[in-house]
Amino acid sequence: MSNGFNEQEREAVYRVIRERRDVRRFKADLIPESVLGRMLTAAMQAPSVGYSQPWNFILVKDLEVRRKVHEAFRRANEEAQKMFEGERGEKYASLKLEGILDSALNICVTCDRNRFGPVVLGRTCQPDMDLYSAVCAVQNLWLAARCEGVGVGWVSIIEPEELSALMKLPEGVVPIAYLCVGYTDGFAPEPELKTAGWLPQVPFSELVYVNQWGSKP
Amino acid sequence: MSNGFNEQEREAVYRVIRERRDVRRFKADLIPESVLGRMLTAAMQAPSVGYSQPWNFILVKDLEVRRKVHEAFRRANEEAQKMFEGERGEKYASLKLEGILDSALNICVTCDRNRFGPVVLGRTCQPDMDLYSAVCAVQNLWLAARCEGVGVGWVSIIEPEELSALMKLPEGVVPIAYLCVGYTDGFAPEPELKTAGWLPQVPFSELVYVNQWGSKP
Repeated sequence: MSNGFNEQEREAVYRVIRERRDVRRFKADLIPESVLGRMLTAAMQAPSVGYSQPWNFILVKDLEVRRKVHEAFRRANEEAQKMFEGERGEKYASLKLEGILDSALNICVTCDRNRFGPVVLGRTCQPDMDLYSAVCAVQNLWLAARCEGVGVGWVSIIEPEELSALMKLPEGVVPIAYLCVGYTDGFAPEPELKTAGWLPQVPFSELVYVNQWGSKP
Repeated sequence: MSNGFNEQEREAVYRVIRERRDVRRFKADLIPESVLGRMLTAAMQAPSVGYSQPWNFILVKDLEVRRKVHEAFRRANEEAQKMFEGERGEKYASLKLEGILDSALNICVTCDRNRFGPVVLGRTCQPDMDLYSAVCAVQNLWLAARCEGVGVGWVSIIEPEELSALMKLPEGVVPIAYLCVGYTDGFAPEPELKTAGWLPQVPFSELVYVNQWGSKP
């Protein structure tokens, strides 16, 4: 295996990272099995603590299940909206935050907290490393989708207990991400919440320190 | 922004995902500022809940600080080793699990749990979404490094409290990942823990369900 990537390959990697978006507007077109297979394979190539591969991928196709998930989102979102006041509340209400029913597919990514357990290399003093491994799988899936022209949106406005019940997760398995997945008319040029003026981009120089917190390069 | 990636671009994306490795053996060569800048920029292009960008990147160059981190690793690893018995304990002891002192650079990725808080869009009922955003940044950095021929290894065998103290993190900021970063003689053809027979690869078919947990496609 060569260390090197040529300039075209590097640019493709940086492009997919730069152009990945949280997508909430979908077309109905189904995702071919081959494309979905590549996306899931990429997810499974994520790093995992102690090679524990704690992830599973539930492909949620059934519209009845998705309606229940959407209902759980609606309830959680109603509660969430109350936390933003005045103009901010109005802006919140104007945002489209999910595509549960209009995307071709939903995928629930889970983490099995007992896989190859109870003692897992690398989790002995940081027990949440397994959750982080599953998140890396989500990010791989997201990037793979982007290079296939497939949009992904992560819905986090759902009570995890409700989601676990709807997905029939056994004891010890927790939901990490509920993803809306499908083709889209277009990937936005920048994050929608930035464009909408919800929050500003934090400058590079404020995010990088040297040797300890607060020490600028 | 075009939806489409051509076949060469797609192959580059899948290649970087497939050939990313947890690297523990490094060369001393310094990483040029331009390369490091691209890696950090890629990290900051990760998805973040409510566009909260909760990450910071502490570039740990000082050898004195790194010696203390290595000492914290050594203590945690001594405790960890006791949890694996017999042949498994011997195998554990034979594994090289970090490159804190022999890599060109260490990077501590943190999560500021109060950034743009207290109420963040998307964290109202899943408060750990900010931690997951920071993990996505780690994965972006890791992939960017790989396409630059730079190795990254995630050291999770350190007590988080000790790491926080060494990095002088303020209240409300938590360490997510301590990374060893540097050029390497070679990326292994497959995960080292797989090659070493530590754990087997879980087959694709065992990881994918439809509509609910346990239901095979």
